[in-house]
Amino acid sequence: MRMISKFVAPEIIFGLGALSQVGESALRLGATKLFVISDPGVVANQWVDRAIARLKEAGLSFEIWFEVTSNPKDYEVIEGVKRYQDTGCDAILAVGGGSPIDVAKAVAILATNGGVIQDYEGVNKITRPLPPLLVVPTTAGSGSEVTQFAIIVDTRRKVKMTIISKSLVPDIAIIDPVVLQTKDARLTAATGLDALSHAIESFVSLAATPLTDVNALNAIRLVARYLRPSVACRSNLEAKSAMAMAALQAGLAFSNAILGATHAMAHQLDAQLDLHHGETNAILLPYVMEFNMIACVEKFARIAEAMGENIAGLSTWEAAERAIQAVRRLARDLDIPDKITVGNLSEERINNLAQNALKDACIITNPRDVTERDLHNLFALALKRGIQVD
Amino acid sequence: MRMISKFVAPEIIFGLGALSQVGESALRLGATKLFVISDPGVVANQWVDRAIARLKEAGLSFEIWFEVTSNPKDYEVIEGVKRYQDTGCDAILAVGGGSPIDVAKAVAILATNGGVIQDYEGVNKITRPLPPLLVVPTTAGSGSEVTQFAIIVDTRRKVKMTIISKSLVPDIAIIDPVVLQTKDARLTAATGLDALSHAIESFVSLAATPLTDVNALNAIRLVARYLRPSVACRSNLEAKSAMAMAALQAGLAFSNAILGATHAMAHQLDAQLDLHHGETNAILLPYVMEFNMIACVEKFARIAEAMGENIAGLSTWEAAERAIQAVRRLARDLDIPDKITVGNLSEERINNLAQNALKDACIITNPRDVTERDLHNLFALALKRGIQVD
Repeated sequence: MRMISKFVAPEIIFGLGALSQVGESALRLGATKLFVISDPGVVANQWVDRAIARLKEAGLSFEIWFEVTSNPKDYEVIEGVKRYQDTGCDAILAVGGGSPIDVAKAVAILATNGGVIQDYEGVNKITRPLPPLLVVPTTAGSGSEVTQFAIIVDTRRKVKMTIISKSLVPDIAIIDPVVLQTKDARLTAATGLDALSHAIESFVSLAATPLTDVNALNAIRLVARYLRPSVACRSNLEAKSAMAMAALQAGLAFSNAILGATHAMAHQLDAQLDLHHGETNAILLPYVMEFNMIACVEKFARIAEAMGENIAGLSTWEAAERAIQAVRRLARDLDIPDKITVGNLSEERINNLAQNALKDACIITNPRDVTERDLHNLFALALKRGIQVD
Repeated sequence: MRMISKFVAPEIIFGLGALSQVGESALRLGATKLFVISDPGVVANQWVDRAIARLKEAGLSFEIWFEVTSNPKDYEVIEGVKRYQDTGCDAILAVGGGSPIDVAKAVAILATNGGVIQDYEGVNKITRPLPPLLVVPTTAGSGSEVTQFAIIVDTRRKVKMTIISKSLVPDIAIIDPVVLQTKDARLTAATGLDALSHAIESFVSLAATPLTDVNALNAIRLVARYLRPSVACRSNLEAKSAMAMAALQAGLAFSNAILGATHAMAHQLDAQLDLHHGETNAILLPYVMEFNMIACVEKFARIAEAMGENIAGLSTWEAAERAIQAVRRLARDLDIPDKITVGNLSEERINNLAQNALKDACIITNPRDVTERDLHNLFALALKRGIQVD
């Protein structure tokens, strides 16, 4: 634990039907015209329509823009901030998964701070206050609704840039589990395991504190108990509510305790191969846990307990191993493969992934010291490669 | 659990030596001249000197005012806001226990909203933004450093007014366990049991949510484990740190889940008889728990577990009773009496206490419905009265 730790969180409005508070919340933030950022899938499911109906009721203007892709890219941010400024907006509403929310944060940065998004990579590079930012997550996974993180792909360098600043914590997060019902089983599984990876990595992080630990552990408990039924049944609102809370608590934990090698590695694969971030994390996580185990065996034993394992009578080491087994079993039950299929990927590209992962901001708080060779070995374990020709 | 819940928290800076961040934090809030509110005991222990040394280093001006008493009073708020305005301050720093922090909140309200503090009694009466508010708690108890509550005595009516508003959440809470070392054993015990009463009342509150529950339960665990050693030894920094975290987490829990009958009753006794709020709560708590038990026996069983009781093999009801026994044993170990000695107090005054407690904002979230007669009976159980002459 660090000697002095910091903890930040947005105002949180949580519950079935919370989406109805979008208009009133925007008014409280002093918005007059909102730039609404989303993606085509969310728009198709009419969540944006429902949100803007509330903005209209509140007498607010808005401009909708939904050209955001997964693993959102620098050029999308450039386009977004141009639209924001051209249309005279003064606040931002994101309705979507981690991608639209992260783009909203990036647009907010450039709207008042100028420059290009690359200028803000790293920690605490933002100097001017951002426009009011209101977010409605439509997946239970990224946690971006409560975090001080935004992750944007630098398309030239093919790396995911991690931007960390207290300014990126949204002003208000409106979390309505009803919205989760339109996601299919595969996305529900991948995003739920993303939340689990946030909870586990932040719990064993070098920057963990008692405040982040209670959130991380409860997120682990909720994922272990409710992710399977949430994937199994779209209309199970108890499971959807629990998973929304799990993602939120995992977000509070990792926003303040940061992450570890799983994320440092996943960021590289996402950026280079445009994989689904949640699934990438889910596959990498047990390999990284095996590597990290000698650094935090007691914490792993507590993870096992939170995962619902019966650890009575076991040694700490045996209990810790149960944590890894429980993570593997959960992923298997949800049809997540145990390797990432990446086709032809040369040794040189693996080296390059390892080099970039070592530079990722998330590596700093990994509980076990990591070398480039360690990362190379971990990539080799987790990747299923075809014939190497490139 | 409510359908839609809200959660707010300040930015938190926590750890040994965190007091050193006062200057930098004030700068970040845009302060130029700080109104420093404290009390004579805190000033005598030089915590205010240490804080203002940091303000000076940061090039900030300040004005010190430390005429705050325990159970702070409306006329102190009037005096405070006059000084704040006459001296041209633009931000407030509170260094102290719950009393200076609550006065700071009340001064902040009047500084930008005008009127008298009575205008803001109740929920959400504040309309204009408050000046920047930075707080450094010097006790581990009130939780006011993170809450949306301020409690001020209306000296004419002799009631404690509860003021609740998101605006009252400080901008930054700086929590340095080192500062707790100058409090004597009795105050450490009383404030620590105040934190326990916050945690238990918010955990069983009708407005509890998973986010408040994890904070409440961890606060209970920390108090059960660390309050005795913290009272026993001033220099035990591990215990001081744990108790600072317990008070903080209990504050996060009750700020968002509100409290119950213990506080509704304690507020009346504090205001009428100027008792120590922490001690009053500590004595009332087990009586109120006995009354509330039929409403929340499962939650009481979880409290027993968090208090460190071995509940294996017990029925839920037996386990729940252990929670009350554990609270009584903790108070006894810390030399807290089991009754409040109030001298000559007529039936009519007891009736009056019960009537006012029924109007207190904290009664609304008590898990068991409460009548005036119930409150009368609870006061009768907890008070040790002399010959009744008045």
